[in-house]
Amino acid sequence: MKIVTFGEVMLRLSPPNYQKIEQATQFEAIYGGCEANVAISLAHFGVQASHITAFPDNALGKSAMQYLRQQGVETKFIRFENGRLGLYFLETGLSIRASQIVYDRYDSAFSNIKPNTFDWDEILKDADWFHWSGITPALSLECAQSLQKALNVAHKKKIFVSADVYFRSNLWRYGKTPQEILPSLVSKSNLILANENNMEELFGIEKNKKDANTFVESAKKIQEKYPSVQKIVDTERISHSATHNEISAKLWDGKNFLETNRISINPILDRIGGGDAFVAGLIYGLMTYKGDQKALNFGICASALKHTISGDANIATVQEVENLMQGDFTGKLKR
Amino acid sequence: MKIVTFGEVMLRLSPPNYQKIEQATQFEAIYGGCEANVAISLAHFGVQASHITAFPDNALGKSAMQYLRQQGVETKFIRFENGRLGLYFLETGLSIRASQIVYDRYDSAFSNIKPNTFDWDEILKDADWFHWSGITPALSLECAQSLQKALNVAHKKKIFVSADVYFRSNLWRYGKTPQEILPSLVSKSNLILANENNMEELFGIEKNKKDANTFVESAKKIQEKYPSVQKIVDTERISHSATHNEISAKLWDGKNFLETNRISINPILDRIGGGDAFVAGLIYGLMTYKGDQKALNFGICASALKHTISGDANIATVQEVENLMQGDFTGKLKR
Amino acid sequence: MKIVTFGEVMLRLSPPNYQKIEQATQFEAIYGGCEANVAISLAHFGVQASHITAFPDNALGKSAMQYLRQQGVETKFIRFENGRLGLYFLETGLSIRASQIVYDRYDSAFSNIKPNTFDWDEILKDADWFHWSGITPALSLECAQSLQKALNVAHKKKIFVSADVYFRSNLWRYGKTPQEILPSLVSKSNLILANENNMEELFGIEKNKKDANTFVESAKKIQEKYPSVQKIVDTERISHSATHNEISAKLWDGKNFLETNRISINPILDRIGGGDAFVAGLIYGLMTYKGDQKALNFGICASALKHTISGDANIATVQEVENLMQGDFTGKLKR
Amino acid sequence: MKIVTFGEVMLRLSPPNYQKIEQATQFEAIYGGCEANVAISLAHFGVQASHITAFPDNALGKSAMQYLRQQGVETKFIRFENGRLGLYFLETGLSIRASQIVYDRYDSAFSNIKPNTFDWDEILKDADWFHWSGITPALSLECAQSLQKALNVAHKKKIFVSADVYFRSNLWRYGKTPQEILPSLVSKSNLILANENNMEELFGIEKNKKDANTFVESAKKIQEKYPSVQKIVDTERISHSATHNEISAKLWDGKNFLETNRISINPILDRIGGGDAFVAGLIYGLMTYKGDQKALNFGICASALKHTISGDANIATVQEVENLMQGDFTGKLKR
Amino acid sequence: MKIVTFGEVMLRLSPPNYQKIEQATQFEAIYGGCEANVAISLAHFGVQASHITAFPDNALGKSAMQYLRQQGVETKFIRFENGRLGLYFLETGLSIRASQIVYDRYDSAFSNIKPNTFDWDEILKDADWFHWSGITPALSLECAQSLQKALNVAHKKKIFVSADVYFRSNLWRYGKTPQEILPSLVSKSNLILANENNMEELFGIEKNKKDANTFVESAKKIQEKYPSVQKIVDTERISHSATHNEISAKLWDGKNFLETNRISINPILDRIGGGDAFVAGLIYGLMTYKGDQKALNFGICASALKHTISGDANIATVQEVENLMQGDFTGKLKR
Amino acid sequence: MKIVTFGEVMLRLSPPNYQKIEQATQFEAIYGGCEANVAISLAHFGVQASHITAFPDNALGKSAMQYLRQQGVETKFIRFENGRLGLYFLETGLSIRASQIVYDRYDSAFSNIKPNTFDWDEILKDADWFHWSGITPALSLECAQSLQKALNVAHKKKIFVSADVYFRSNLWRYGKTPQEILPSLVSKSNLILANENNMEELFGIEKNKKDANTFVESAKKIQEKYPSVQKIVDTERISHSATHNEISAKLWDGKNFLETNRISINPILDRIGGGDAFVAGLIYGLMTYKGDQKALNFGICASALKHTISGDANIATVQEVENLMQGDFTGKLKR
Repeated sequence: MKIVTFGEVMLRLSPPNYQKIEQATQFEAIYGGCEANVAISLAHFGVQASHITAFPDNALGKSAMQYLRQQGVETKFIRFENGRLGLYFLETGLSIRASQIVYDRYDSAFSNIKPNTFDWDEILKDADWFHWSGITPALSLECAQSLQKALNVAHKKKIFVSADVYFRSNLWRYGKTPQEILPSLVSKSNLILANENNMEELFGIEKNKKDANTFVESAKKIQEKYPSVQKIVDTERISHSATHNEISAKLWDGKNFLETNRISINPILDRIGGGDAFVAGLIYGLMTYKGDQKALNFGICASALKHTISGDANIATVQEVENLMQGDFTGKLKR
Repeated sequence: MKIVTFGEVMLRLSPPNYQKIEQATQFEAIYGGCEANVAISLAHFGVQASHITAFPDNALGKSAMQYLRQQGVETKFIRFENGRLGLYFLETGLSIRASQIVYDRYDSAFSNIKPNTFDWDEILKDADWFHWSGITPALSLECAQSLQKALNVAHKKKIFVSADVYFRSNLWRYGKTPQEILPSLVSKSNLILANENNMEELFGIEKNKKDANTFVESAKKIQEKYPSVQKIVDTERISHSATHNEISAKLWDGKNFLETNRISINPILDRIGGGDAFVAGLIYGLMTYKGDQKALNFGICASALKHTISGDANIATVQEVENLMQGDFTGKLKR
Repeated sequence: MKIVTFGEVMLRLSPPNYQKIEQATQFEAIYGGCEANVAISLAHFGVQASHITAFPDNALGKSAMQYLRQQGVETKFIRFENGRLGLYFLETGLSIRASQIVYDRYDSAFSNIKPNTFDWDEILKDADWFHWSGITPALSLECAQSLQKALNVAHKKKIFVSADVYFRSNLWRYGKTPQEILPSLVSKSNLILANENNMEELFGIEKNKKDANTFVESAKKIQEKYPSVQKIVDTERISHSATHNEISAKLWDGKNFLETNRISINPILDRIGGGDAFVAGLIYGLMTYKGDQKALNFGICASALKHTISGDANIATVQEVENLMQGDFTGKLKR
Repeated sequence: MKIVTFGEVMLRLSPPNYQKIEQATQFEAIYGGCEANVAISLAHFGVQASHITAFPDNALGKSAMQYLRQQGVETKFIRFENGRLGLYFLETGLSIRASQIVYDRYDSAFSNIKPNTFDWDEILKDADWFHWSGITPALSLECAQSLQKALNVAHKKKIFVSADVYFRSNLWRYGKTPQEILPSLVSKSNLILANENNMEELFGIEKNKKDANTFVESAKKIQEKYPSVQKIVDTERISHSATHNEISAKLWDGKNFLETNRISINPILDRIGGGDAFVAGLIYGLMTYKGDQKALNFGICASALKHTISGDANIATVQEVENLMQGDFTGKLKR
Repeated sequence: MKIVTFGEVMLRLSPPNYQKIEQATQFEAIYGGCEANVAISLAHFGVQASHITAFPDNALGKSAMQYLRQQGVETKFIRFENGRLGLYFLETGLSIRASQIVYDRYDSAFSNIKPNTFDWDEILKDADWFHWSGITPALSLECAQSLQKALNVAHKKKIFVSADVYFRSNLWRYGKTPQEILPSLVSKSNLILANENNMEELFGIEKNKKDANTFVESAKKIQEKYPSVQKIVDTERISHSATHNEISAKLWDGKNFLETNRISINPILDRIGGGDAFVAGLIYGLMTYKGDQKALNFGICASALKHTISGDANIATVQEVENLMQGDFTGKLKR
Repeated sequence: MKIVTFGEVMLRLSPPNYQKIEQATQFEAIYGGCEANVAISLAHFGVQASHITAFPDNALGKSAMQYLRQQGVETKFIRFENGRLGLYFLETGLSIRASQIVYDRYDSAFSNIKPNTFDWDEILKDADWFHWSGITPALSLECAQSLQKALNVAHKKKIFVSADVYFRSNLWRYGKTPQEILPSLVSKSNLILANENNMEELFGIEKNKKDANTFVESAKKIQEKYPSVQKIVDTERISHSATHNEISAKLWDGKNFLETNRISINPILDRIGGGDAFVAGLIYGLMTYKGDQKALNFGICASALKHTISGDANIATVQEVENLMQGDFTGKLKR
């Protein structure tokens, strides 16, 4: 199985030892991005993964590419463009103090890609799966257009498409709204991650306030509107504190509503990328297991494990995730 | 609003990563002191704060002064005296292991100040508030005398005076007892932090063993004895472990008894200065809000937040504290 | 009182900050070993402790010896042999992620000792106590033989012998089984740490499945078979997560069954050596207190405290452990 | 004496231990900028210094401001604007390997200032000296206009103006050339730092190829063209390797040509800001000493010393620089 | 162009900050090996490079493989075998104190390869160049046999073969001497790195004591004996101190004797892998430039640059090396 | 051979990476003291060494004692006294920037020893050599008296006494002058380190301004005045910069004047304790070799090597020093 992911990679800078940014005299550096995190995790699960992005042609772009390669991700379709490497500063909170992110990502090389920067026919030649998120079409018109091209090719080749329909309004600065851009992209996708708020805001699917399981109601309406969408997935997070969360996941496949148990993580080491780890786990599960329930379980266990691993991406192995799936949350020393 | 604070600043040296002192090959260095911590926190809340102290005229005194300035505290009245910079070594505990402090503060430049080192008329010219703690008069007779002078000037200028009537018996080494020195200082103060034990030991206010709320009984007697004292405040700490505490606060204003909810902090990053952060928060609240209850709430939330910030002082903003006041203890990521 | 301990010392390498091994660009280094950890803890309790081992004659062997000396352990009987210093890589887990150890200990200088490397008559001349573990006879035939010689001498001199009958099957690679080697060693020992599984596997003491307290039943049978064994001890660990455990201990002295309370440690800083810290605490308690119950309590408190101290060995003082014994688990700051 | 400086402050990120950027897993963080470096050094020399700039209203802008304040620089006229904090990544070279800088400074809050962001009449009210560099007018038209306003006010108030006519062509991206902008700015300045290439490129002063001391020839022509310019100064650097340089300075005051000895620095710790340290030293010298030769010597010694101090700015004291001026380059331990 | 390299990769552990091993509480970790270093450097020069080795199937083997991939080296032919990852401890010296290495490499997974672990026909299918060193045949008979197989295939396919005939007598522990093994390997090689001592000891080429250029005399005799050898290369190092060396290189191509200038490196950051960087540079030069002189120059400049880069491998770009080749040793800051 | 040394041990705190003290957010910690440094170096040379001092009974005193023990020094005669552990802050300079020390050593536990704190008969029972320095009698009258007692015992037992007649006037604060105290101590010593200035200031030996070798003239006069003094030794240091020194040594034994070559150290890692390393090397040489010249050479080589080792004490082995003695200053890698 081979997956292709598409999206921006940023340099993440975070003060060590739970310092606030104002206290930092050094920053820990690692690279990450919503879709690249999915690729990295799948590579650690043994899936062939190729990430598509653009970097500036300088030492930072080179470093980011080396990082992807180190994690087992294929980088041969990555291009160099004008612009900078996007950054974000992460101040890691704990207990009652929330983590905070200062983004500094405008004018990135990725947002400056041209419509023909990527040859999607070539890139998707032997792909089985394509994954995108709602961040990419928010960055520039060219990003949205390139993504649309990719989806057209994927659709033609019957490549399965998953989408993390992620929505951060302050990202959309180039004159288009998500409501103008996303529907056409979703119409070429087969699995989407979205909660009821997303579905309401982005696709006009009104929340049924009275229904006990409004998620399923909303999901059904999405499927009516976008028949290509076979599965709608969502995760839930109960945040007891910055260092203690419980997470679970649910899935509607058009017929069945599946849910996982809640997993409690206390303490959390690094919460960033927890959602991406879920996506990667779900994709791995769907590729590997019979039955969506097991895939969903694998996804939520992968996400839980990510919370104990520093950096944006989950680098755990299938074995480590399966240990959790089998119920071993005791953290007992393995010799 | 402008506050003036007066007291010693020390270099704090602590082993990293929860090492014991015997394991340390390096020490993390930061500066702190009971009253300076109050000034720093208030500066971060946007209040003009001037700290009065004396430093040795060497690289350590210079560093300590730079630190105060960095934190937004006015340093123009600080003087250089003979003597050393006081130190303390902090071994940070966790769970069942207690934190331990080794003090090394004798013969400090601050304890060597002269009666006329500080020109209090000039210093307090445009001040609205003056804050002192029970540590200062314990350090040397000259410290006690200089503080008395400051209080006399403050009283004359009708500057509001708060006092953290803090009592550590092993500090008093110059021949006077706290019972000889503190009453006259308290008689010029308007708000004091003291618990029933302090009130009994220092001012001879006998604890009423039978009364349900002996704090109020004691506070009333203090006010009888020291009519200038308008408010008596105390905090409570339930220590489940070195890394899990619950804190709350209470206040008697002569008429009303106010209390806060308990806030649970788990894990704690740095417990030192939690009391000073409360004082700063309370002062900010009293300066800013109508009604003491809100001020008390702001104080306890500020104190709780300090437990998650490394160093002696609270460097959180008003916004961060108010988020907690509004009940958001979930630690959810802020983007 | 003087104790002699005998066993391998390894270099432990662990990634900082809960990194996985694949993320590490540096490793924290410390030395440790089951029996040496007992010696170090006893030295910190004020007991004269001499550790017997062999090191390679290089900078690593020299460093390991310096470490033992720093911790107060006598090193004058340590010898240099051909071979390497055994290593292990420790990946420290947290919450639901388990810690993992990669051992790299074969062909160590210690496993290459000769039958006459150690002069046990000289070494045990003024000893009161001798301690060994089941790791040593697993490493090489010469290790087993040297240990047997030591026990023969100890027996003759009426030195009290304790044994941590620790069993890891993958260590036994030189052609003998633990069942062939251990019985003769246990027959010269006076106190053993063993759980029912060990007793069944190693000594053929069948577990009585129906009995409420099968530990006592098994222990009685051990004493029948090995009359020298006066006490059988075991610890229990409930693992809520990698960072939250509860521990307790039990002891059978031939007449009485003693138990401790459970102690909860949350968070755990370093779980490695928790068992060795218990053994050292128990030995100290038996040397010092009247009544095994107090010794057992001291042992379990020492073990709990170790979980909050980094490195393999407990370096807490008697005072720190006794504070816990008296029930102070609040972790309150000591000034 | 009070100086006002005007210019951008950036976050500098550099890999530790002479790593290349591709090797970095963390970056050391400090703040710096050509003109702010001058202000910081002068503050350490005891001169009152106020820096004028704009920061983004986030944790990074706050940190940069705290840094300036820590170094003794007045920050009360600093404003917050939209945009980001400019960054640069510094890869520190050694011996034959050159240091390399990756700039990431576009769209900074400073470049987004408005014509009326700063009230120059208020800012320069009690100033004796104003300092600017050629970077500021390169960043945006508004920066150039604001600088021109400042110079007009300074000229009116007879404030002495120094200018580091620094020229990096790739900075000029807003549609104007340095040749269009700089002459008017220089015409209101009294001391300029410029070498013959600058003078040729920027002001059309042709280098006299045959003349032995073409610097003086060029300087004379500058003074003819810009009569306000009283002194022209330049430094020279002989680069034996990235860690071994020799530096010297020269000055033409309209009548006299002055030169310093060459100072050899080996090894260099941090070469960045060496020129700014010279400027600050020269300004201090001109403010303090009689005779430009001594000022020039102080400047070059200050610059040399900066090469041994990490960060962008010279934080040495007058005493430390004067020790070098008196010829003590032996580096002998001071107790 | 594609190169295949074959050899062991070890974990290198070195104390930071020029500590001696006895002082280290942590070790910096990186991976390296004579032949892998060549592959890494060539990958950074843009040459397709595939490294052939075996790793243990644990976190350390995984990390080593990730490192190679990060550096751009193809890892798809790497196999997992029983055994450990070889280690070495590097104590970095400076000035008069020599660096010291403690090897700990026996029983490595690589030394445990089987004759058929690698399918050399497949591996060398599209290779243009094969590189080996004298370390590989020293490790085990199977290593020597596998190398011989590789050379046979390379010879048949007319792949150019370079060999670093490196000789460390204490490595040869499996019963064969280098004199028994190396001649047959050299007879299938086209370029060898060897000095006169190597040629005498390994191939019985007696040094001509009287001849001015005995290197050429020895080289001629090698070519007589091993007609496949087209070029003999050697480097020279003048060691002024641990941190100051001069290096140069020479080459005999059967007709011409070529030499480079001496390059002085002061200070040296990391001397390990300087020879491997030369080999990689020479190979790149021979692949790229016309004329061996330019290739030799590129090689020695690459080697010089490596001395300023930490880790075993040269990660400089072609541009950085060519800057040196054009004579720019000034280390001037590149913006 | 067994040596006893007597003197204060301090905690040394130094900013990492050549930071100035004002820049430090952490300090590297190590313990050292003039006489303890001699003991440590001799222990590393294989000489039995016992250090006599007093520590405060807290975690810092315990740490200092552990450090001595780690280095192989016997600590059984060390006592605990009231007072603090003396400190010093070391700012390490480089090239033209001088290192600077801020002492903070008054009121130390060592200066508070009582006349009978040490039982010198017991301590010196099996000693062959006693070493003291001029710092000890400067700290307090009790220190001077205890030292005098020690010398009386040593003299009686014919133990060889060496003295580093070190003179820092600002240390003498208890009312006595060195001229009152030192002569009686020197009169019981057999080898002294002193330069002509010391001899003039302390013992009134006027420097013969005209004499070519005034050292010998002064030394002769010392021997006339203090017949017990058999050898007078001095070192010379040419300081090219903080990181480049040349050192040499000379000795007068009553008949012969011996000198060493000059050794150049560039770069220096840590210059502190260079003199103590010389003393230890000289003592080792006098204990071991025939002829003072070889001892003097060993001393100066030991001192040179110390300059490349961090911390106060030389931890090199005899082998490492002898390599230098045999002229190998090339720093070539040892495998």
